[in-house]
Amino acid sequence: MTRIGAIEAGGTKFVCGIGSERGEIEDRISFPTEGPERTIGQAIAYFKGKGVDAIGIGSFGPIDIRPGSPTYGYVTTTPKPGWSNVDLLGALRREFGVPMGWDTDVNAAALGEATWGAARGLSSCLYYTVGTGIGIGVYAEGRLVHGLVHPEGGHTLPRRHPDDAFAGRCPYHGDCLEGMAAGPAIEARWGAKGHGLPAEHPAWAIEAFYLGQSIAGAVLLNSPEKVILGGGVMQQAQLFPLIRAEVKRNLNGYVSSREIVEDIDGYIVPPGLGQQAGLCGAAALGLAALRGAVG
Amino acid sequence: MTRIGAIEAGGTKFVCGIGSERGEIEDRISFPTEGPERTIGQAIAYFKGKGVDAIGIGSFGPIDIRPGSPTYGYVTTTPKPGWSNVDLLGALRREFGVPMGWDTDVNAAALGEATWGAARGLSSCLYYTVGTGIGIGVYAEGRLVHGLVHPEGGHTLPRRHPDDAFAGRCPYHGDCLEGMAAGPAIEARWGAKGHGLPAEHPAWAIEAFYLGQSIAGAVLLNSPEKVILGGGVMQQAQLFPLIRAEVKRNLNGYVSSREIVEDIDGYIVPPGLGQQAGLCGAAALGLAALRGAVG
Repeated sequence: MTRIGAIEAGGTKFVCGIGSERGEIEDRISFPTEGPERTIGQAIAYFKGKGVDAIGIGSFGPIDIRPGSPTYGYVTTTPKPGWSNVDLLGALRREFGVPMGWDTDVNAAALGEATWGAARGLSSCLYYTVGTGIGIGVYAEGRLVHGLVHPEGGHTLPRRHPDDAFAGRCPYHGDCLEGMAAGPAIEARWGAKGHGLPAEHPAWAIEAFYLGQSIAGAVLLNSPEKVILGGGVMQQAQLFPLIRAEVKRNLNGYVSSREIVEDIDGYIVPPGLGQQAGLCGAAALGLAALRGAVG
Repeated sequence: MTRIGAIEAGGTKFVCGIGSERGEIEDRISFPTEGPERTIGQAIAYFKGKGVDAIGIGSFGPIDIRPGSPTYGYVTTTPKPGWSNVDLLGALRREFGVPMGWDTDVNAAALGEATWGAARGLSSCLYYTVGTGIGIGVYAEGRLVHGLVHPEGGHTLPRRHPDDAFAGRCPYHGDCLEGMAAGPAIEARWGAKGHGLPAEHPAWAIEAFYLGQSIAGAVLLNSPEKVILGGGVMQQAQLFPLIRAEVKRNLNGYVSSREIVEDIDGYIVPPGLGQQAGLCGAAALGLAALRGAVG
């Protein structure tokens, strides 16, 4: 039986596990992200002797995913102390002689959802993670999308909600999507973390305003067959109907496909893989590497 | 020698031609887009007896490009009189038993540029056409991007320029990108067509503001390796440096690739195929169909 090693390499914690070809997670551990030597060492120790056939890594970023680049496989310019310019993929390659898949955490999650989750059988989806930051994984025409670098859709500039005076907190763009709608923006705007605000708090209408605007724009540009919203902030289930309404309001009937007009509840959805989306996504990268597919 | 029939099916005129495998256009005619029967008839008459090995059609839209759909190959809900629900591809199929490529005009142009033009050898690009409307073709991971429908990136919502009080003229969204920056918006805002405004007119800074904002957003979401700007409005060469500056201002150093930081003049460019971009794009669709590739 095929055993796929999976690493969800986050800025706060690493989750490692063993997945099957069918996307079942058979074992998992997690540990806080400390210095790279210690943390990568823990991941290596976990996989030693487990007989994995491949390893997939979905990593926090920015990371270098350009094949042929001298720093391919590195975490590059992250502000996270100690992690700038770290050869994460290379450290694993030196220990394990198996095929390895390597991509961003959100692209991994998009691939996982396309392989086993909410976008199974479809050839396109977007995966949003809304948490400490906002990332968007892009899967189109049956492939994860890369180019110059990897997608960084969390930094597009939304129009401001008329009742929102919050300045935004992205160090690069101030009031970009991440600066206005990631978890820390919610906390800074309202003086309380999202999970401490009641479901009827005005925070959620504003949050949905920004996320819905971004999703409408991404739907117009890429026309994905499914939009999947994960991450800590999206644990607030009341956001889903608010976001769907904002997407419809923004599109205003322009994209007249059945999926949006008649069944938006099935179009903008939580991860089919639930809390395992990140780890399953990493396993999907490993499986794709094993099959010789790129991304 | 391979002869590829090409149709650039526009809302104002049809251009038909014969292209080679190397993207050379060997013959072309154009005629105004009148009723569908007459216009499609003219296209059919042009190709009769020319011995084409394939035909590619890049069409105005919206069009149905979902294989298996009962209206695949149709121009669907266009406001253009007579053209709503017209089986354009089917009409050609009934006359010519050769492989046919079918996509939007802007996706066709993106493929043409990737095959023979400014994005040759790259695996991704965006193609903007800025004219009567604004369309964005999306090419990623070596393929044209489709999903629910085709990309409709001209309808995303930009932030407003601080000196711009123009209401916008998109019937769906008012002040979306197309409503604020397509040719008719320029004319309505300034009371003169773009080609009648001098290069130093404030119109161009405002135009670049909206286009630059859209491009920055699309670069963040999809990370294309090249951005190609065509269409009538982009004949105003003074727009290019203004747009490049707006893109840099919007990104604010966040996407730190060499292509943007050091060589943005080579990153945001006019079509390598010049005025032939549309027709070559249609030929590229035909060639792809002949080679059995999808899009």
